[in-house]
Amino acid sequence: MDNLIEQINSPEDLKKLRPEELPQLCAEIRKYITECCSRNPGHLGASLGTVELTVAIHYVYDAPKDKIIWDVGHQAYAHKILTGRRKEFLKNRCYNGLSGFPKRDESPYDAFGTGHSSTSISAALGFATAAAMRKSGEKTVAIIGDGSMTAGLAYEGLNNAGGSNADILVVLNDNKMSIEPNVGGLHNSLLKLTTSVRYNRLKMKTWKALGSGTIRDAVQDLVKAGKRLVVKNSTLFQPLGIRYFGPVDGHDVIQLVNTFKKLRSLKEPRLLHVLTVKGKGYAPAENDQPTWHAPGLFDAETGHRLTDDDPDIPKKTRFQDVFGHTLLELARSNPDIVGITPAMPSGCSMNLMMEEMPDRCFDVGIAEQHAVTFSAGLAAAGYLPYCNIYSSFMQRAYDSVIHDVAIQNLKVVFCLDRGGLVGEDGVTHHGAYDLAYFNCIPGLIVAAPMDEVELRNMLYSAQDKRYTAISIRYPRGTGAGIRDWRRPFQYLEPGRARILSQGKDMALLSLGAAGIMGAAAVAKAVEKGISVQHYDMRFLKPIDEKVLEHVSRNFSKVITLEDGCLIGGLHSTVSTYMARHNEAISKVTGLGIPDRYVQHGKAKQLYHECGYDTESILQSIIALAG
Amino acid sequence: MDNLIEQINSPEDLKKLRPEELPQLCAEIRKYITECCSRNPGHLGASLGTVELTVAIHYVYDAPKDKIIWDVGHQAYAHKILTGRRKEFLKNRCYNGLSGFPKRDESPYDAFGTGHSSTSISAALGFATAAAMRKSGEKTVAIIGDGSMTAGLAYEGLNNAGGSNADILVVLNDNKMSIEPNVGGLHNSLLKLTTSVRYNRLKMKTWKALGSGTIRDAVQDLVKAGKRLVVKNSTLFQPLGIRYFGPVDGHDVIQLVNTFKKLRSLKEPRLLHVLTVKGKGYAPAENDQPTWHAPGLFDAETGHRLTDDDPDIPKKTRFQDVFGHTLLELARSNPDIVGITPAMPSGCSMNLMMEEMPDRCFDVGIAEQHAVTFSAGLAAAGYLPYCNIYSSFMQRAYDSVIHDVAIQNLKVVFCLDRGGLVGEDGVTHHGAYDLAYFNCIPGLIVAAPMDEVELRNMLYSAQDKRYTAISIRYPRGTGAGIRDWRRPFQYLEPGRARILSQGKDMALLSLGAAGIMGAAAVAKAVEKGISVQHYDMRFLKPIDEKVLEHVSRNFSKVITLEDGCLIGGLHSTVSTYMARHNEAISKVTGLGIPDRYVQHGKAKQLYHECGYDTESILQSIIALAG
Repeated sequence: MDNLIEQINSPEDLKKLRPEELPQLCAEIRKYITECCSRNPGHLGASLGTVELTVAIHYVYDAPKDKIIWDVGHQAYAHKILTGRRKEFLKNRCYNGLSGFPKRDESPYDAFGTGHSSTSISAALGFATAAAMRKSGEKTVAIIGDGSMTAGLAYEGLNNAGGSNADILVVLNDNKMSIEPNVGGLHNSLLKLTTSVRYNRLKMKTWKALGSGTIRDAVQDLVKAGKRLVVKNSTLFQPLGIRYFGPVDGHDVIQLVNTFKKLRSLKEPRLLHVLTVKGKGYAPAENDQPTWHAPGLFDAETGHRLTDDDPDIPKKTRFQDVFGHTLLELARSNPDIVGITPAMPSGCSMNLMMEEMPDRCFDVGIAEQHAVTFSAGLAAAGYLPYCNIYSSFMQRAYDSVIHDVAIQNLKVVFCLDRGGLVGEDGVTHHGAYDLAYFNCIPGLIVAAPMDEVELRNMLYSAQDKRYTAISIRYPRGTGAGIRDWRRPFQYLEPGRARILSQGKDMALLSLGAAGIMGAAAVAKAVEKGISVQHYDMRFLKPIDEKVLEHVSRNFSKVITLEDGCLIGGLHSTVSTYMARHNEAISKVTGLGIPDRYVQHGKAKQLYHECGYDTESILQSIIALAG
Repeated sequence: MDNLIEQINSPEDLKKLRPEELPQLCAEIRKYITECCSRNPGHLGASLGTVELTVAIHYVYDAPKDKIIWDVGHQAYAHKILTGRRKEFLKNRCYNGLSGFPKRDESPYDAFGTGHSSTSISAALGFATAAAMRKSGEKTVAIIGDGSMTAGLAYEGLNNAGGSNADILVVLNDNKMSIEPNVGGLHNSLLKLTTSVRYNRLKMKTWKALGSGTIRDAVQDLVKAGKRLVVKNSTLFQPLGIRYFGPVDGHDVIQLVNTFKKLRSLKEPRLLHVLTVKGKGYAPAENDQPTWHAPGLFDAETGHRLTDDDPDIPKKTRFQDVFGHTLLELARSNPDIVGITPAMPSGCSMNLMMEEMPDRCFDVGIAEQHAVTFSAGLAAAGYLPYCNIYSSFMQRAYDSVIHDVAIQNLKVVFCLDRGGLVGEDGVTHHGAYDLAYFNCIPGLIVAAPMDEVELRNMLYSAQDKRYTAISIRYPRGTGAGIRDWRRPFQYLEPGRARILSQGKDMALLSLGAAGIMGAAAVAKAVEKGISVQHYDMRFLKPIDEKVLEHVSRNFSKVITLEDGCLIGGLHSTVSTYMARHNEAISKVTGLGIPDRYVQHGKAKQLYHECGYDTESILQSIIALAG
């Protein structure tokens, strides 16, 4: 019976197992995921929670003919392992290795790629509609977490599916968590739903005993108390036209198989509510779910997280923590400041302010559009919202920024974390476009600090009346490593650059933290006898036209450097200036993210690939110096 | 008792009326709106439907202290009239006149500006949260149509409000319509809800009789049958934590006043379901609601629409109709083509295909994100979706285009109507940014036809294998006026411009329909002895580098022309090319939408203001020729 996992190279192999062998397979998969992630970091918690779900779905459904569509996709490790990528999973999220998310290029079993939340129902409805038009008989399953259900796109998909007669099964993977515990009316309602079922089953006595237990205990007790497939109840879903089934224990693989067999034969829009535990089966991950969402390296045996020992950690403060500490500091002295986060309090370090000022911080769930429009409402009512969103997730709130904030000249401070290439999370998570997509919006200030102190001063300066709505974007992880970044605040005038080095051979205009690599390259160039005038532009919009004027008159060779797409950001802005002014003598070379999709790997590998790590910048300088 | 309306210059004046005077006031307002709109076109239907609602809310609530927040805002004419803008309403939507939507700059009673749908609940939650923090006792009301409830942002707001204890009243203005009849599970559920209430009240016999009647009859019968404030029922809203009240007759102003008085005193998140009739009280508008959403000029007495007599109409075909007819023609010969529209079948003319091929067209409701991700699902399943969205509404689906379509290299043909300045709908509706926000997305083709034939050929060519996902954007209204635009299809190679005129003094590179004004200016310049080499670029991305190379070597004076923001589109792309290439001798002048918000007025007035109507282009040519 040992090593079932090694016999499985496709869902076909899985189907050869007897049902009673599935629990062992699940245990093996869980162990394999845990061991792989301990040595090669990944999204452990979510994937441990979906092992039985994945096995059961692939046991019952016939992928790739049937379409299995994951939401977010970081919970799909078991899916990757079962669909012929067991060995490749050792290189999960590595440069040239597997993506950490489903990806159409990677496997025919990845019916629809993802990375962002809440897309699965809409995509699944597309597949189901296509299957109906072709009468192909293909079945479609979307697996979506309760966290993803707070985003409007999921609701739009549900509403449209519910109004159709599409043959689509939505599996609601309810673990009460996104990265943080979930919030909002729907969450309360799901909680009520599951608890009322428990109440019916277990009687008040048992339920009271559960009060202090974890959801894990509750699920286990629920299982012990007996199972029943269909619970009639008033939920969000029935008014939308979606037939509701559940809740069922998401860790009882045999029950899940039986359930899916029954549900597969239906043909209407339907939803199965499955209760799972994030981190299931690995005690440290179950007990501290936010931390073990993506724990980094750890000792699988002891559960000791090796990042705790990482000698680099105390030396450098992450940009997000500079943000978090500074926001708290500013909020202490400015009572108008409020903090808004769409489900990312610890992911972006707003938790620091939340702990001290819970009434002035708002975690709105995964709901970026709402986060921005809600911020606009707060601003219209006289508050100063600091709205903190990943750059790539801000794409989802683009209209809200334009329509609700910028057009109305309301002042919201957008704190864009994960600006630029993010590393292992890859193509869906790179903050490649924010500089470009905000640059064209009238009335918005677009800023990018080069280092910790500049981030701090931008957050401080944004309070000033001379500032309108602003996007302050900074990268994932650490930066220059300025240890005494908690210096007294200094006001930065919008649109004012600073000069970092004097030179005569060429000018380097950098924006944001890429300037650190730029400065290092400039220092090395000096050793080779090339002197570069280096400006940290600080602001893309308004751009420092005095600097551009000076550069256009004095330098025939100009390099722009940004950790963002070359089209539409600094490179475009500087080039446009040069092409518009008759006095310009400059030819402009752009370093930044090229016009193609950059995949995953360590950030340094990706910078190198794109030609703007320190060494590449140096090579560009040398080549240009000719 | 005559002329109550003239006594009302603020909500204070309104409150001086006795409740029994309100019906007469409503009648006068309705008449005034109808007469104004007959002479000066506007959104008639929606505003006729909300007269009683508006009067009742202002009668009970204390704006501007209390915050009244309209969704979309085209139904807020009575609100404008009651809040000191009665006379100004004669210049509704005119250049330098009132905006057709609530606008913070315009009045302190316009608590939150709008134009796009589904923002009101999120904004209201911001105000309500601010009021709670300040303990100001201010009340907050959001008025949202059932059409707007299909968009995810509204759900995000509801979910967040339901999870809070905010003192917020959501008024669901349920007229069963957006511009078209509504769709989706929620709509069915609201219908069921209202019909089940009716069933309880009116008994089966009456209800059956209603079956063939209009909703107007049903509401009137409901009113006759008696009213009751609170109906307990399972809705979408209760699972989200929103207390549900209703439905009530939205045209019984006295009942509404009593209802709002009761609801105002509550403090929890709550929703009042109000049944209204779009076009209420004006028979032509009630009887053909889509047409009378925005009917243009009409004879108020007879209901005869004057646009029917407009001698221009038969001469020129609107771009949207070229799209609609061409799509149908292509779909007849290509069975893979499907059409997707978010609630705009007649607004964008996809109704032409819908009528002939209802099974291959999908109106998904106001849900732009879903429209795009659903299209991506259909594309992944092998279909070729033509997804038709207004340029400014596409801002809401930006992440879906990047994450679900472009990253996955799925082929969706985005047909962007209302690209460029749209005229009277103003700042929220201008399609100013699409060229810029799509230009930075790898793998996307960005195209803009200059005329009817080019639009037709782009729609045709997009089917070809050499095309990836593409955005084809075209303006509101008519264009060059090519009468025989139904010519045989011609394949256009992506990234290939065409030359319109030879010249030696300067080059004009235009993109899209603005090129028509450009060509007219070039013709006039010839008369003044200035010869201009004019290119219709057709594609922003890929840009025709051969043309750019030729221009950069042969012309020291270059003008770019686009009906889009100057930052990030054609001007930036051409400038960047020039600044990158050493052989370039060109100085580039950009004509397009400047980096500020352009308000409302006739499109020609706005082109002139922005400096790219024919005369302004000519002036630029003359100035540049020196």
